[in-house]
Amino acid sequence: MHFADDLMVRTREIGHPLCAGIDPHLARIPPLFQQGSMTATDPATPGAVEALALAFLDRLAGRVAVVKPQIAFFEQMGSAGLAVLERVMAAARERELLIVLDAKRGDIGSTAEGYARAYLEPGAAAEADAITLNPYMGLDTLAPFVERAAAYGRGLFVLAKTSNPGSGDLQDRLLEKGGPVYEGLAASLSELADKLKGPGTGWSSLGIVVGATYPDQAERLRALLPKALFLVPGYGAQGASAAAAVGSFVPGPRGLEGGLVNSSRALLFPEAGQAAETASRWEAAVDEALDRATEELTSAVSL
Amino acid sequence: MHFADDLMVRTREIGHPLCAGIDPHLARIPPLFQQGSMTATDPATPGAVEALALAFLDRLAGRVAVVKPQIAFFEQMGSAGLAVLERVMAAARERELLIVLDAKRGDIGSTAEGYARAYLEPGAAAEADAITLNPYMGLDTLAPFVERAAAYGRGLFVLAKTSNPGSGDLQDRLLEKGGPVYEGLAASLSELADKLKGPGTGWSSLGIVVGATYPDQAERLRALLPKALFLVPGYGAQGASAAAAVGSFVPGPRGLEGGLVNSSRALLFPEAGQAAETASRWEAAVDEALDRATEELTSAVSL
Repeated sequence: MHFADDLMVRTREIGHPLCAGIDPHLARIPPLFQQGSMTATDPATPGAVEALALAFLDRLAGRVAVVKPQIAFFEQMGSAGLAVLERVMAAARERELLIVLDAKRGDIGSTAEGYARAYLEPGAAAEADAITLNPYMGLDTLAPFVERAAAYGRGLFVLAKTSNPGSGDLQDRLLEKGGPVYEGLAASLSELADKLKGPGTGWSSLGIVVGATYPDQAERLRALLPKALFLVPGYGAQGASAAAAVGSFVPGPRGLEGGLVNSSRALLFPEAGQAAETASRWEAAVDEALDRATEELTSAVSL
Repeated sequence: MHFADDLMVRTREIGHPLCAGIDPHLARIPPLFQQGSMTATDPATPGAVEALALAFLDRLAGRVAVVKPQIAFFEQMGSAGLAVLERVMAAARERELLIVLDAKRGDIGSTAEGYARAYLEPGAAAEADAITLNPYMGLDTLAPFVERAAAYGRGLFVLAKTSNPGSGDLQDRLLEKGGPVYEGLAASLSELADKLKGPGTGWSSLGIVVGATYPDQAERLRALLPKALFLVPGYGAQGASAAAAVGSFVPGPRGLEGGLVNSSRALLFPEAGQAAETASRWEAAVDEALDRATEELTSAVSL
């Protein structure tokens, strides 16, 4: 098993690079799913989040290759929330969806080892296929994750240029040599990316996060990391178009390819779903949002 | 309530800046506390970790002002591990120990809001007094934490120059203007640090993490952030002396002050504790390690 090979084969089959984000903002849980006060400390809240996430997974099965749960939305409910995440991830696996856990962890030595064990070890309660990582503390912090990528075929997405307005504060600072910080970082990942290339497709399981809101930067990053998968947030609710989101993709056997385009809010919380009074209406609303995104992206990657 | 004021008053009373790290490496749990296989997925493991952490808190009560649990060591056991962390944090609070949660979180908008709610909100299951944060995604990612710092008197420690060998990969890169990345970051935090200054001591609840292994860098950072608390890892097991660890401290009413010096392994896993066959022997071993560290640091901060 090799994450990048597996992911690329699946996205080629499915015809688009859409990754469905699972970001259950408590303030947006549709009335249909609400239980109790919907505050993070109400013991009824984890059940509501679980019901929504499981219903969402049912819509996604067979229509996207991969889901990206954002762990913070579960963590905010404490250990009960993390238990929900574990069950949601198990359910995603049963539905044959790949899982990129959006955790943005980054720490040293034995601490990084703890995170790697928590999320990339076979049999872990919250076992994911890939994880997002924060590189601020240095490349040695990636080691335990790289080890699992090599041993168990996991994928890693290192933050490079993120989609938020403040991403420039640190990432865009110009270095004395070698352009902005995020480019310096990307260049330093190049060797590692080569090592984790898949035998099947040539794509690497060492990927980076590159916001769809910064297409020019994405293009420069592609030049530095030609075989790295790009996890692209910012499409949809954050304002970037499908064309901008796949701006760093390159021609492949079935169209443009090179990573994943994430959409969260637009899929999980479509307006019509918020108003839905029955499960079937909610399902139809989510299906419609999914259709829109998959059509836009299928068209954006067509050659 | 104001975190920096509270912390400084307590450390002045107690006479030293020692922060006891709670980093329960599974491979180091003393035989006396072991249960089952001690792997992360064994259902007996969380109980062993909890027993050790609670026994450790009993040694710390009244002898240190503050503890720093490292969340990764709990997270590696999944939701059951996070439940242990919640109980350990509640027990620390009962023993009147301040809690800096070492989580190094960093994310955007609503996701950061989720983390802030998880750890800095009154009544949260894992309620901490302060948290460590990763700034790579930009200063906007700090907003929800800064809000809680202002509203509930919480403290924040932003990663600046960390203690690990690889910390240079990104943090030491020289900027076109303004020295290395970590100095550029520190300069950009200056305004925020001023805003969170305590009315009692003048110290700010916006602190930074500065490794004891880099005393020269710490001195330069002190010049940039004269009133920020420095959370200093790397003393003890990581090789830095007590004198180096307080190198960035400045004269205060009771000696040098300016932050916290963390020790984890040397306190929780002293050699004699590993060999202890009875609870009282283990307690004596930990007490001795605590004595050594508090004496070293008390002497290092004496004027």
